[in-house]
Amino acid sequence: MADRAGVAISSVSRVLSGHPDVSARMRDAVLAAVDDLGYRPNVLAQGLRRRRTLSVGFAVSDIANPIFAEIVTGAERRLRTAGYSLLLTNSEGDPALDADNVRLLEQRQVDGLLLSLAQEDTPAIVELLRTSELPLVLLDRDLPAGVTARTAIFDHRGGMEEATRHLLELGHRDVALVVGGPTLPARERRAGVEDTLWKGGGRLVVIEGQFGVEEGYRGALAALDRTPRPTALIAAGNTLMAGALRALHERGVRVGTDISFIGCDNVPIAELHDPPIAVVRRDARRLGQSAAELLLATLGGEADVANVVLPTEFLMRPSCAAPPR
Amino acid sequence: MADRAGVAISSVSRVLSGHPDVSARMRDAVLAAVDDLGYRPNVLAQGLRRRRTLSVGFAVSDIANPIFAEIVTGAERRLRTAGYSLLLTNSEGDPALDADNVRLLEQRQVDGLLLSLAQEDTPAIVELLRTSELPLVLLDRDLPAGVTARTAIFDHRGGMEEATRHLLELGHRDVALVVGGPTLPARERRAGVEDTLWKGGGRLVVIEGQFGVEEGYRGALAALDRTPRPTALIAAGNTLMAGALRALHERGVRVGTDISFIGCDNVPIAELHDPPIAVVRRDARRLGQSAAELLLATLGGEADVANVVLPTEFLMRPSCAAPPR
Repeated sequence: MADRAGVAISSVSRVLSGHPDVSARMRDAVLAAVDDLGYRPNVLAQGLRRRRTLSVGFAVSDIANPIFAEIVTGAERRLRTAGYSLLLTNSEGDPALDADNVRLLEQRQVDGLLLSLAQEDTPAIVELLRTSELPLVLLDRDLPAGVTARTAIFDHRGGMEEATRHLLELGHRDVALVVGGPTLPARERRAGVEDTLWKGGGRLVVIEGQFGVEEGYRGALAALDRTPRPTALIAAGNTLMAGALRALHERGVRVGTDISFIGCDNVPIAELHDPPIAVVRRDARRLGQSAAELLLATLGGEADVANVVLPTEFLMRPSCAAPPR
Repeated sequence: MADRAGVAISSVSRVLSGHPDVSARMRDAVLAAVDDLGYRPNVLAQGLRRRRTLSVGFAVSDIANPIFAEIVTGAERRLRTAGYSLLLTNSEGDPALDADNVRLLEQRQVDGLLLSLAQEDTPAIVELLRTSELPLVLLDRDLPAGVTARTAIFDHRGGMEEATRHLLELGHRDVALVVGGPTLPARERRAGVEDTLWKGGGRLVVIEGQFGVEEGYRGALAALDRTPRPTALIAAGNTLMAGALRALHERGVRVGTDISFIGCDNVPIAELHDPPIAVVRRDARRLGQSAAELLLATLGGEADVANVVLPTEFLMRPSCAAPPR
């Protein structure tokens, strides 16, 4: 058979045993030869079911969010060094599509799933995850009861606490927070701001909706219309930040002068804005890499794999200053 | 056989005829029974190849580019209304990964492929596309010889001609162009600037590399170091624009005052920049939708489907002004 496929015996053995260090071309050549030589179909079929397909599925909640490009890149590079390819799906932030996409990936014979779901606790998705036979890693989401999975998350609270302390130190007491929901990042960011501001004697207005540019725009307008107007605004998501900045520009509110502003994620609009925007930043690529490593460890049969929590940190920039007057 | 798989006759019929309304568990049970009963494997394999899986593969060259989120969203929404799901892969702008990803999608039994390749004319990818049995739609790429596919592209030249005419009218004669290569968008953007500037008596410096933020940064620095310094700079890609703006900020070169600047794609950094950045814009979501419609028409057996060319247009903004002095 090695002869027929035009490859070394050792390669045939590697292909049939599901060894990860096999090129797609090699695998195709060997499996074609196996077919030609009339191996019994059920052996092959069972082998195909059992063997590693060397692919991983990644259900992304919203690829329009630039942070996911970083997470995917981190995961993909790590998986590639282990010989795995990545298949992606996009839920456009719509929980109803999460379950469809997880099902789609399972049907396409991936060896495991990375899940950055729009929402992890809908009945459809919980049922699907509980009954899934694949190794699962959840990114930045709570682990629903009854689901067996690893988790890789950020400490969103830590960075927001730092950010809020900075506002208090500058003298701010009236703060508005625009935040999405109801996932782990939104909840933790909100809790970090609330706790810190409350301990520091500040007042908080929370405008809670979904993550998204339009939501950030409307949320910021709502904050600006409050009386008294908050002296500081926190947009707790990078798409919320983009929308909030548009609202501030339209209203002619000068960032860092008329109002202090803090965003999320060190994306280009934060860095290139005049003045540059203070943000709570995180290493998204590292989250993707960590999630990939958790999945690879599970696929490799390692039982003692610790879940991952990565830090976030406040990056001070001139969009924050003392309150006017 | 229905007896053996422990399912209803109608379910066996649905599985073998490729009906979409079949669970993965049901399919596996039926196919295992088929195997056990000694059906010839190639019949089954052919059946699986022929049947519709109601999924489409989309090989994306670089999901870190925000324009692809728009294209994917446009394609996905159109496909979903026709009952199709979308599986994505990412090549990180690396032509070597294109072929691996196309092969991965083909192996996962998609009904057709949308291809936004890092590069369409490498020997590996040309061979793969020539021999593919799937309906193919290429987005914003040339059709390699011998490949049967539909194409959906932008008229990149048109918008760049408009942009360059605007610079000439303002009085600019020394222009620098930072552009990626060697794909259709880069070539057409370059041709649009070159032709228009040449006819108008201007001088052009072209800094040609790859698309990417770092390339834009280095390209803009190279342009600024020229003597005499160009009075206008065109960054012919949205990631090139982001990098070029960083270079201008670092050097303290004031956009719209010290130098006129034109970018690509109406992404948030262009809109929120102070001053706002003039760009050549395009409707990326519509390209995705058009590509999906071409694929659906091909899948539906329509022979007379016209390829799609969508316009681009110049959006004037205060980043362009008359040359200094």
